[in-house]
Amino acid sequence: MKATYDKELCSILKDPTMRKVILGVAISLDGFIEGPDGEYDWCFNDQDYGLSGFFKRVDTMFLGRKTYEMTLAMNESSNSGFPKLKEYIFSSTLEKVKEGATLIKGDITTEVEKIKKEKGKDIWLFGGAGLTTSLLNLGLVDELSLAVHPVLLGGGKPLFSNIINRIHLTLVDTKTFSTGLVSLTYTLGQT
Amino acid sequence: MKATYDKELCSILKDPTMRKVILGVAISLDGFIEGPDGEYDWCFNDQDYGLSGFFKRVDTMFLGRKTYEMTLAMNESSNSGFPKLKEYIFSSTLEKVKEGATLIKGDITTEVEKIKKEKGKDIWLFGGAGLTTSLLNLGLVDELSLAVHPVLLGGGKPLFSNIINRIHLTLVDTKTFSTGLVSLTYTLGQT
Repeated sequence: MKATYDKELCSILKDPTMRKVILGVAISLDGFIEGPDGEYDWCFNDQDYGLSGFFKRVDTMFLGRKTYEMTLAMNESSNSGFPKLKEYIFSSTLEKVKEGATLIKGDITTEVEKIKKEKGKDIWLFGGAGLTTSLLNLGLVDELSLAVHPVLLGGGKPLFSNIINRIHLTLVDTKTFSTGLVSLTYTLGQT
Repeated sequence: MKATYDKELCSILKDPTMRKVILGVAISLDGFIEGPDGEYDWCFNDQDYGLSGFFKRVDTMFLGRKTYEMTLAMNESSNSGFPKLKEYIFSSTLEKVKEGATLIKGDITTEVEKIKKEKGKDIWLFGGAGLTTSLLNLGLVDELSLAVHPVLLGGGKPLFSNIINRIHLTLVDTKTFSTGLVSLTYTLGQT
């Protein structure tokens, strides 16, 4: 697997000392992150698909309220195998979050820019749809890393919705796997 | 530009003597074939992007009524540069079509299977959305050839809509271009 355009990466990044917010997610070719009944059975898990490299880049997660509550339920029933990441939960309605996590209730731009300026590795924007849309529209996402699965789901939860203005992207990497999964990595904005 | 998995192509095709229906189209990363105001200004035209090779494979076009009427209007004002292709117009409301084109009013499956069995090169499913959805749901599309542009349009006309059942795909080719356009080619069904 050969990374394409890696040499261009450095010139694209606006401030290489600042932490990046990376939207890293599995999607179907028709753009859904969940099937019509909330199912994930179409997601490949037979290979690493670059995930271990991705996990080395990040030490922090951004989660919306619904996604946070979903991960809480999942963690109670099983160990998901995710590495230990610092969690920031974005919610205007929650009063408190689990021990070790941080609740973000204030102005999103101010809070995210503050966290991005802190010392640390990059930040995984884990979802959900509402938080993803807000951060994209506010220009706070630095990178998209999409694992495009070879399937049309026909319905479900779309990754991209309610994006207000056209967003130009710069392709920085593509990887093709034997199962037909294509990993596409973009930075936001044009070179 | 290296074609991936070309050696697998022959084993995938169900009947190599039959003509293929290929959905070949430019899309944004968020899955739109037109922007919110029907615009195409985001489509790259600085390079060939494999189009001349594609045009060598096909000698026939499938068009829905709206797309047909749009191409009529375009042809009156300019020469689009498209090669001369035999045109089939799918419509239940039109009574006649332009000279040289063929109107398809009957049962879609019967008519398409008849055309696919005729002698000739492959068939370009040019659109629009309604015809594309019908042919996908009826299992009459053999290949997807998507020119994924590095842009999020945020709205417009989606390529995939109203697909009833999950459709599995087999990736047969990927090409990455210096402008960030990624060309993805899939056959329908699993190997």
